[in-house]
Amino acid sequence: MPVDVKDYIRDRLPLVDSALDKIVPPAEEPPTALHGAMRHLLFPSGKRFRPMLAFAGAEAVGGTASDAVPVACTVELIHTYSLVHDDLPCMDDDALRRGRPTVHIEYGEANAVLAGDALLALAYESLAEAPVKVGPDALVLAIRDLAHAAGSRQLVGGQADDLDAAGAASSIEQVQSVHARKTAALIRASIVGGARLAGADDSQLDALSAFGLEVGIAFQIADDVLDEGEDDPCSLVTALGVDGARERAEGLLETALARIASFSETADPLRALARFAVQRTQ
Amino acid sequence: MPVDVKDYIRDRLPLVDSALDKIVPPAEEPPTALHGAMRHLLFPSGKRFRPMLAFAGAEAVGGTASDAVPVACTVELIHTYSLVHDDLPCMDDDALRRGRPTVHIEYGEANAVLAGDALLALAYESLAEAPVKVGPDALVLAIRDLAHAAGSRQLVGGQADDLDAAGAASSIEQVQSVHARKTAALIRASIVGGARLAGADDSQLDALSAFGLEVGIAFQIADDVLDEGEDDPCSLVTALGVDGARERAEGLLETALARIASFSETADPLRALARFAVQRTQ
Repeated sequence: MPVDVKDYIRDRLPLVDSALDKIVPPAEEPPTALHGAMRHLLFPSGKRFRPMLAFAGAEAVGGTASDAVPVACTVELIHTYSLVHDDLPCMDDDALRRGRPTVHIEYGEANAVLAGDALLALAYESLAEAPVKVGPDALVLAIRDLAHAAGSRQLVGGQADDLDAAGAASSIEQVQSVHARKTAALIRASIVGGARLAGADDSQLDALSAFGLEVGIAFQIADDVLDEGEDDPCSLVTALGVDGARERAEGLLETALARIASFSETADPLRALARFAVQRTQ
Repeated sequence: MPVDVKDYIRDRLPLVDSALDKIVPPAEEPPTALHGAMRHLLFPSGKRFRPMLAFAGAEAVGGTASDAVPVACTVELIHTYSLVHDDLPCMDDDALRRGRPTVHIEYGEANAVLAGDALLALAYESLAEAPVKVGPDALVLAIRDLAHAAGSRQLVGGQADDLDAAGAASSIEQVQSVHARKTAALIRASIVGGARLAGADDSQLDALSAFGLEVGIAFQIADDVLDEGEDDPCSLVTALGVDGARERAEGLLETALARIASFSETADPLRALARFAVQRTQ
């Protein structure tokens, strides 16, 4: 059954948006600047790509999108915290994101640091108190995976190396290592976490883990291809050229899809999201 | 049995120090600046007051300090992350802590932000993967409590209000609300978390929760009394004077001790730590 990615996202967006709106304190609750800063980049929503992968991960193993709502919120909170801190003056120093002022421009630098911190704590609090259909042992493993993905050996370590690489040429291996940690780890954790909350078994989780890492790296390459105008030293476009980078992303996508070849058609949304992530033109 | 607090701390320090040393990646592991920054304020250790409260919480309900090691590490990681971020130029802008350069002075501002972020993620990762003697349901509740204590309604919200209060006079209620969130919430979570991992029942947890909040506020007042030279608007010394503040701390301590009056002598270390925290002279 062919899956229309835009329909898929549109249908499931309210699931994650309404859950996030309940989890994050209202902007009117004191400290209002802190809660406003926490919400600034979270609403209105972007594509919610990571939550969609969590939903598709749950469906791939026979569950429903609803099963994965707690993980969908957690990965969006982690992703949002990382953007808020990445934009800070001492990091990438960005004044605009998605056409709006970044959090530190709108709420000041202290509130941006604190809002990121609070989003990260909330990512784990909301997951630990969510009603789930699996047992608490599976929930503990989901929390562990999602905290590992956010840590110094994954997301934060990748960001540290990315900042270090600014201005210096990087080898293909170095670039791919940054992509694997900074981008792919959380994408993998989104898919695996969603599947875990739907009751996936270990062999399903292993296949989805390999799939998620490869799709995540290919997703970042696709980003680099779209940004080709920018002269980023930590980009495979710089190392391989646009055609070489595109070819590598396509190769990773095919390898990834082969990992889940034995999954039934309930994995079609996951396959479609992966293709969309790699082949998108914006 | 009278408890010598200094002996108690000295005997149990290696438990938490060796566990933390295993949990936090070595400074030689790349990214070395990030891992060095994560370790900078963690080693050599301070008093490890919060880990000691976790140990004493476990012992108070008939468990051992070993039961509480995972929570002891988590609360020290959360406390350390919050100090690293509090010291940043956009927050309290401190160049020295415990007589050494702060993390952003030693490793740069970006690494200080990232190191704090990674310590926070590691706080939950290490707890979720720790071997514990209680079931996974109790572990999930401990994670929830410790993430709540770190969030915008507790620690981070208290810090945001504390920064806002800088320069402006605060009422006694405002000061106490900041203390309850910024300081007491994590102290309470240390005690309750330690007791949870030792198998405490709900009535024990309720008593320890009330005890922890009161001791935590009294601890912060004692800090303010020790800092009386500083003209901090968010201090009960400013609002009540030194004698008034000291009296309030003593009153809170007595109320707190009454909450756990029915606990056996296994709670004596907890009682002694609480007295020490409030009556210390340095």
